[in-house]
This record gives sequence, structure tokens and C-alpha cells, in this order.
Amino acid sequence: MDKKMETSKRSHTCGEIRENFIGKKVVLSGWVQKRRDLGGLIFIDLRDRSGVVQLVFGKEINEQAFEKASTIRNEYVINIKGTVTGRQPEQVNEKLKTGHIEIMGDELEILSKAETPPIYIENESKVSENIRLKYRYLDLRKPKMLNKLMIRHRATKIVRDFLDANGFLEIETPILTKPTPEGARDYLVPSRVQKGKFFALPQSPQLFKQILMVAGMDRYFQIVKCFRDEDLRADRQPEFTQIDMEMSFVNEEDIIKLNEELISKVFEEILGITIPNPIERMTYQEAMERFGSDKPDLRFALELKDLTEIVNQSDFKVFSTTVKNGGHVRAINAKEGGKKFSRREIDALGEFVKTYKAKGLAWINITEEGIKSPIAKFLSDIELNNIVKQMDAEVGDLILIVADKPQIVYDALGQLRLELAKKLQLNRDNQYKFLWVTEFPLLEFDEEEKRFVAKHHPFTSPMEEDIPMLETSPENVRARAYDLVLNGVELGGGSIRIHDSQLQEKMFGVLGFSTEQAWEQFGFLLEAFKYGTPPHGGIAFGLDRLIMLLTNTDNIRDVIAFPKTQNHSCLMTEAPTIAEKDRMEELGIGIEKTRNKDE
Amino acid sequence: MDKKMETSKRSHTCGEIRENFIGKKVVLSGWVQKRRDLGGLIFIDLRDRSGVVQLVFGKEINEQAFEKASTIRNEYVINIKGTVTGRQPEQVNEKLKTGHIEIMGDELEILSKAETPPIYIENESKVSENIRLKYRYLDLRKPKMLNKLMIRHRATKIVRDFLDANGFLEIETPILTKPTPEGARDYLVPSRVQKGKFFALPQSPQLFKQILMVAGMDRYFQIVKCFRDEDLRADRQPEFTQIDMEMSFVNEEDIIKLNEELISKVFEEILGITIPNPIERMTYQEAMERFGSDKPDLRFALELKDLTEIVNQSDFKVFSTTVKNGGHVRAINAKEGGKKFSRREIDALGEFVKTYKAKGLAWINITEEGIKSPIAKFLSDIELNNIVKQMDAEVGDLILIVADKPQIVYDALGQLRLELAKKLQLNRDNQYKFLWVTEFPLLEFDEEEKRFVAKHHPFTSPMEEDIPMLETSPENVRARAYDLVLNGVELGGGSIRIHDSQLQEKMFGVLGFSTEQAWEQFGFLLEAFKYGTPPHGGIAFGLDRLIMLLTNTDNIRDVIAFPKTQNHSCLMTEAPTIAEKDRMEELGIGIEKTRNKDE
Repeated sequence: MDKKMETSKRSHTCGEIRENFIGKKVVLSGWVQKRRDLGGLIFIDLRDRSGVVQLVFGKEINEQAFEKASTIRNEYVINIKGTVTGRQPEQVNEKLKTGHIEIMGDELEILSKAETPPIYIENESKVSENIRLKYRYLDLRKPKMLNKLMIRHRATKIVRDFLDANGFLEIETPILTKPTPEGARDYLVPSRVQKGKFFALPQSPQLFKQILMVAGMDRYFQIVKCFRDEDLRADRQPEFTQIDMEMSFVNEEDIIKLNEELISKVFEEILGITIPNPIERMTYQEAMERFGSDKPDLRFALELKDLTEIVNQSDFKVFSTTVKNGGHVRAINAKEGGKKFSRREIDALGEFVKTYKAKGLAWINITEEGIKSPIAKFLSDIELNNIVKQMDAEVGDLILIVADKPQIVYDALGQLRLELAKKLQLNRDNQYKFLWVTEFPLLEFDEEEKRFVAKHHPFTSPMEEDIPMLETSPENVRARAYDLVLNGVELGGGSIRIHDSQLQEKMFGVLGFSTEQAWEQFGFLLEAFKYGTPPHGGIAFGLDRLIMLLTNTDNIRDVIAFPKTQNHSCLMTEAPTIAEKDRMEELGIGIEKTRNKDE
Repeated sequence: MDKKMETSKRSHTCGEIRENFIGKKVVLSGWVQKRRDLGGLIFIDLRDRSGVVQLVFGKEINEQAFEKASTIRNEYVINIKGTVTGRQPEQVNEKLKTGHIEIMGDELEILSKAETPPIYIENESKVSENIRLKYRYLDLRKPKMLNKLMIRHRATKIVRDFLDANGFLEIETPILTKPTPEGARDYLVPSRVQKGKFFALPQSPQLFKQILMVAGMDRYFQIVKCFRDEDLRADRQPEFTQIDMEMSFVNEEDIIKLNEELISKVFEEILGITIPNPIERMTYQEAMERFGSDKPDLRFALELKDLTEIVNQSDFKVFSTTVKNGGHVRAINAKEGGKKFSRREIDALGEFVKTYKAKGLAWINITEEGIKSPIAKFLSDIELNNIVKQMDAEVGDLILIVADKPQIVYDALGQLRLELAKKLQLNRDNQYKFLWVTEFPLLEFDEEEKRFVAKHHPFTSPMEEDIPMLETSPENVRARAYDLVLNGVELGGGSIRIHDSQLQEKMFGVLGFSTEQAWEQFGFLLEAFKYGTPPHGGIAFGLDRLIMLLTNTDNIRDVIAFPKTQNHSCLMTEAPTIAEKDRMEELGIGIEKTRNKDE
């Protein structure tokens, strides 16, 4: 008996009534899922968070309750008293956990009437997402939606319990804070008390968690809202939640080991899945070369192979010139793709890689009749044979080749690989392939700003042995950074931080900051580092994404109670809204008329 | 052995080493609290989160480590290997948990050097709070400050465990949302995507949690940041944290009972205090009449007594005219105040009540020689005797009387009561007097707006039996609201909500809203209520205040890792700051020049 849910208005929850209750009186409250009138009896499916149970009202059972029952409609909220009885064998509903019993209704009180809801409270109702978001309170009544929020609750509870047991302190960091230097676009909040100045909403508690290490907190975590004012992609929201942590006196191994335990626990307890211990690791370099991605989906092969050496002397200039100019030639063997894809489908793949900036997609079809390929005539037999051999290609296979600048080759083939898995309908269900990707590049060159920028953030520590290269070839310096990837999705990432002021200043130098600029932007952290800083590092997981993976959805809005649409609107509350004039005046800000024309 | 804190850089934590470790090798990391050179030996107090342990370095122990030890200074971060040894009896330091042992240092690595910190890392260092806030990371190193954050962590963990065990789901509600109608001042966040429009930061998740009940979540909680753009009082911050909850199918008793268990658990586990079960209750009316406050401090008596009946016919016109005009005459017997207070101190009390709008303070001093009072000559002997009797006054006591409008009498005497407790040095230490205050007025008349406003919020349910008075005498309608008070501080408050659309509309009518206005402001909630709403209610606790009470501090900034000052600044990060011009342009907002003169 689920004692804890007992209140003055119920003795039990609907979903927990079983055959061992037969003969007992129960008091239940809930929503009317369905009413059927049948042979002088009224059957009602009563729903609460725990499930559905069938009520029966009849003149013979209780006339008053029967009369009331005859007035109720779907989604009415009612309170009933009744007696649990077993169903006749032919009436048993095996689909319901409560399907062996029903409740003879002695009393019925209508707690709240309901108009006909604009959407059906059914898992599979086909309603546009905008309507679902407008009537979010109805959409959330669907067991499927409720279940996602329940899993979110349970998963965060497991995380908190685990981190607490491992000596982490949950410490709140400010929401009204300073703009993030070197970050994405901040949300700004005008200050009334200091007119003309602004707070920024945090993109992450990065600086604060490092400060907490300087403060001697030793182990910090927080499950915390973060904010980025970006144009939304499918899996992004303006506000999102991070599982954020930081540890002192640790190296990569300490952090990886602890987080493997954490993630194992979550997947074990929520999905009953045992995760390999330890989780596989791969360097960034290997991930790019084999999968064209720093978050490879390991549920299928379709690995990239390097053809550069084979074709660098080729008469086919597209290949050899590319190589001469420092490019790569790499390919994927789409197993059985030759048999399965039409010429039109192959052309579509060519268009697909162009969206990732590749100039084109060469293909070689291995048929029963031999090689078919528009480029075959440009390649020597030796070259063709070596390609087929390198690609392990058999009859029925399709070799797909991209020759371009290395990053474009990786991107295009990495994305093509995912596309092929879909098109070839490779089985990806119920597989959970975890992977640590390590040794990320510390820096990337920003073509727009014409300078190096930090790939993670400016506090990420370079690998010890690469430090000398900071001055000679920064692009080759690897970071003490690690990402945890699941099925091609980045679950989280982190790094060991720089805890040495001198190394930090050198890093700022590489990023093109003068000492003054560095101090202007990160002064308080640099100041803090002067007074005794423990070696430290951390990691942050995207909670929304984690829950998406745990609940098997690719819609981030399904795992957030009140999400926003692509244009940053909440369709239920209609936020954002026009502000009152008084408030604007108090804040000392105005709407720029010139900008309003964009509206 | 605290296994969980083991990392690659330590086998144990400093504070856990005891006599049973003697002879063992340990690896420790931490901050140098103190270094003393003595007879060719160097003693170092090494500190981490868990405590302090003494290290000993000597040429005889390890020369290299000794040489390094001789270079280190306070707040250096070091890593050491050494052997635990027992101290000579005369060397034992009983003040330290680790005071029976010390560690002979075999190896020493300096992990981070430290400049001389601008504040001492000592609990009682006398430094201005502004310096402490600027160097927050140093201030937080003090065991006393660390301990407050650790208690905060533990208390929230206890709350989460309890609510989880009682079927509550933690569900996140948006931070970027709509302005709060009928609330305090909102923080606004300009939308870039919808230029000219604004989000507001939530003052509480009130509407969302009610929506979650409509959505069938049944039990919701959240430990959540809330925001109010108000001028700061001592115990306020622009962002603060609430323990927020809501339950369906409940009445007041269900909520009070559950929260008594919750609060008991927190105080039991953190302070080892057993709270009375059930907690005492008092109606708002009784609290005002006896203590002049809706959050009475029950650690001392000094109750208000009513003299209205005694003096309503008095020749002393100050009293009788006040009564004639609907005012009250009430008094406090400041026990032994006659003996203890000088004439000047009594005059100061008169000034004190004037700050609460009372016109004056009459006093009667009961001395060995009889009654001394400036008003004695205006009162008859019978009146005087009745007053003394009503006040239970004895020789040495001081009767303090206020005659004024009822609310002023309550306020002035309520505050005077607290002031007297301080002046009379009544013992208030180590007492925890909990109290539920119930049956609050539903409405209060707003003199500025010339209309009734909701005392809690517009969704608070009136008491069933008072509903008819909504139309006849709204000021007398009591709410199904309850506050939990501890030692004169409001820990939390809540109510049963209106779940009936008709009653809700009637309520809006009393508040002077047209149907259109009500829908404009609360439309989505009113819409939601149309589709089946369970009876529901909730409560919210101020987490910061709770932690203040648990850690015995009256400075809210001491229980928040990174608090703001009275002018809404973070002295460490220097937020808020001037925004970049580009960002302002993107947002389509500008600083109003006319307003800048206020700067």
C-alpha cells in the first residue's frame, strides 16, 4: 500500500489497486479517462499519476452515486468511495495492471467539471506540437509525457545521491552575473539600481566552480539552469540544465572513473542496462579518422578509410591535386549500398555531402558485372584494385569518396556515415554505445577573428608534453579534455584546468590577449589563482540530452515541462511580452525605434 | 577511512587521520595553514575541507622534503607523503581532532604557491565585509564559512530525500518567463528574437506549480531560484532560493502534517533538536492580539494586553477619543523594566514606537513608592488599578501603552516587544519555537490603489464559511493560508488554492479586475482551470532563511556562496557591468539618456 500518497481525499492511488484489495473499501481521486454506459451500469476509467482503474456505478450499487455518474464527462475530477471486487474471468483486462479488479462505486463527488479538452489525453494523439504546447497541462496528462518527467526526476535524484555519497557539495552559483567572455551570446538583464549596467545570465557556472575549488570546497556539483541566447536548433533551448561538477586534487583518470560509476548507476537504475566498465576510449584524432566525428556513433561500423596514399599520384587530378594541396581523400564503404541504392539515391548522397561543404562525392559501385563508376575511367587498374582492397569492398557494396580539405572530408563523411545508417536501415535500437573521446585539440583557428580560440574554454589545461608547442605550433597542442559520447550524442564534457598563473598567462597570450585584456575579462579568476590553487578539473553533462536518451526521444521539448519554441516563445504563457512603460523607465532603457522595423 | 575522497593525489583527507593510523603511510593534499620552525624541525598545519593535521619536516626525516618545506608560506597548496606517528603526551593538542598524531614528512611537492592573502583565513578575523566579499574565495576557506555551505548542502539533501520518499516529483519551471501580475518588481530580460519584447525572471513558480497540478503531476517540488528587483533589506537578496511544493487532493491538514515531518527531519538531523509534534498553531487574529505580529517570537512572553475596555470612558481624552474613533488601547508589561530602565531609556522607547507610526507611548512605572507615570494624573484610581491588574504588574514593572488605530497599535507594540526582549536581555539562545499561523485575512485594502489586494496571492482560497462575506465584507474573509514561523521569522507560507473557476472569477471581481483584465493577466491559468482541476495547495520555504536559522547567523550573505551587496553588486566579479554596444543593438534596446543623470 502506497501509504505516502494517502491524503484526506484518498486512501490509495488508482494504479496500485490489485487483487489483494478485493473486499476492501477504498477512496480514490482522479480524472475521468472514459465513461461507458452499458446495460444500466456506468463504467468509468479513473486516472491518476499512478495509472487507471475501472469504476462501476449502478442503481443497485448506489443510486445517488449512479445518478451523479451519469452526469460526468471526460476529464472531470472526481472523488469516489467504493469496494474493490474481482472481475469475471471474461472481463479481465490484461493490458491494465489493475485489470483483474474493478471498484463498485458507493459515493461520488465531482471535484471539478471539465469542458471538452482541445486535445485527446492519449499517448498517440495526432495533434500539432503547437497545440500541445499551448495546452501543455493537457499534453502532460498523457502517461507517456508524465513518464518522461518522472524519469527526469528519478535520474536527477540518482545523480544527487551518488555525488552526495562521493563527497560533493551542491553549491548554488548566481543567475544574475557577468557576461561570459569568449562564450556564446548572453542574455542580458538591465540593473535598476545601477542604471545603464547589465547582469548576464550564466552560460555555465565555469568560473564560479573554479573559484569554489580555490575556496577549498574540494568537490562541487550543481544541477543548474544555464542560458544561451542562440538561434535554436532541434536539440537546443534558450535555458537548459546542466549537471555540473568540479573536483580538486585530481587528474583525468579520477574524473573519468567517478563519472563512469555515475553514468553506470543512472543507466542501470533507469533502464536496467549494464555499461561496460571501463568505458571505451578513443583519442580525438582516431575518432576523426575512423568516424569523421568527435562524437562517433558506435552502434554501426561504416568506418572511414584513408585513400590518400593510394591516389596521391593518380592521373585523376581531382584526387591528386587535392592531396598536393594538403587535402585528404577518404571514403566509406556503404555495405550493400550498391545493391540497395538507385542512381538517384546516390546522386542525393552527393547533394547531401555538399551541404557539409564538400565539393562532390565520387562513388564506385561493385556489381556482379564489375566496377561501375563515373570516375573509373580516370583511375588506373592498380589504383582501383587498391581502393577496393583498402575498403574491403565486395560485390553489392558502394564506395563513397570525398577529396577535400581534411576538416571538410571528416565533416562530410562523418555526416554521410550517419545518413547511410539511416538509409541502409542499420539496426540502432536498444544499443547503448558509450565512448570517451580524449586528447582534443586545445585550440582552433578562428578564420573570422584571425586568431586562435579555445576549443573548450581558456582554462583548459594543455597536455604536459605539448606545452612547448604552445609557442611553436599551437594548432597541434592537445588538451587534457574529455567528452562522454553515447550513440553519437555528446552527453557531457570537461577538462583538467590550468591551475598555474604563468601557464594561464601563456595561454592568454596564444589566444591573442594582452595581459590587460586578460585581466579585464578574467581578472577575478586570475586574482584568485594567486592565493593557492589546487589542481582541479571537472565535467558537465547536458541533463536535457541525458533524459532524451533515457526516454528514447529526439524532441528536447518532450523532456522539459515548459519548453520554448524555435522563436523563443512559450506558447502557454505567451512569454515574452511587451513590457510596461513604467518598468522600462525605472530601468532607464528604451526600445530603439530603428530596430523595430525588423518586427 | 574516507575512501570516497581518495584520488590520485591523496590517500586520505587531513581531518580524518587518528591514532589508529599510527605507523601508516599517507598521501595528503591541502593548504598550508601555518608554518613554524622549531629546533631544526619545520611544523606545518595542513588544511583541507575535513580539517587540519600537523606535518613535521626535518633533515633527519627527509632532507629534500625539509629543504622544500623551508620555502613554503601560508596558503601554499602542497602534496605530501609521510608516516603517521603518535605525539608525545605533552605535545598532544586536544583542540584538534587530529591532535594526538602528527605526520613525518618524507616527500613534499608544491602544487601552487600563494601570495600573502589580503585576509586571514581565520574564523574571527576582523575584516570589513566588502573585503571579504571581494576575496570571497579566501573568506570561504574559513571553516566557519565552509561549514555554513556544508549545512546548506546537507539541509537541501534532507529536504529532497524526504520529498522524494513522499512521492514528490522535482520538476523544473522556466526562468525566462512572463511578468508576475500583482507581484513585486520583476527583473526583465530583453528578447533578441522578438525585439521589443521581454521575458521576466520568476518571483516564484506559483502559476507553473498550479498548472502542474492541473497537468496531473499530483505532487511537485523544486528547490529553485526566484528573483525580485527590490531595494535590499538586511535579509533579502535579488536572487533567493525557495523550497517550493504543491500537492493535489489535499487540505490544510495534509500539507501541515507533511511539512511538520519535513521540518522535524531537517532540525533533527542538522541540529539534533526534536520539534514538538504537532507544532503549536495560532490564528492570525490571536497572534496579532497577543504578540502584535503575524510571526510572533515565542521564545519570550511580553504579551500584549487589551486596555480598551478599561479606558474607553476615561477622562484621559487621548485614550477615550482613540477608542471612540475605532482605535484600540493596548499595552505590554515590561517585566522589571521599571527597575532596569532609566528615564532616558523609556523616552527612547517612545521614539522607537514613533518609527512604527504610533503617536506616542504612555508608561506607568510601578515603584516601591507607588505608581509613577506622566499620565497617572489623568486616570482615575479605578482605571489605574484595573490597568495594573490587567497587566499583572508588580513592583519593578513598567507598563507601556499605545493608543492608536488597531494596525498601528499592533505594529508598534509588536516591534516594541522585540525591542524590549533585546533591552531586557531575555534569553533567546538555543531555543527553537515553531508556530503555525493560520486563518490569515484573504485581502488587505491598498490605500494607494484604493482597492483590495490579495494578502498572499489571488489564487488563495477563502475559508468555506467566509465565502458569502466576499460580497458583503471582504476585509473579514479569512484565507485557507498558513505560515510556519520560527523564533519570529517566517520560514515559509502557503495556502489551499481556489480550484473552481467561478470562485476564482468572484475573487478577481473583489480585487477589482474586470473579466477582461483577469484573462489578460492570468488567462492561461484560467483556461487551464476549465479542463478538470484537482483541489490543491502548497507551501514555499525560504531556503536562505532556513539555513540562517540552522547556522545561527543573521547575515543572509553568509549562507550564499556568492551574494550581492545592498546596491545589487557582486564585489568579486564586479557584476553588473556596462554592456557591449553590439549586444544592445542586437537586442534593439538603448540606454535612456535622460535617466543617466541619476547615476
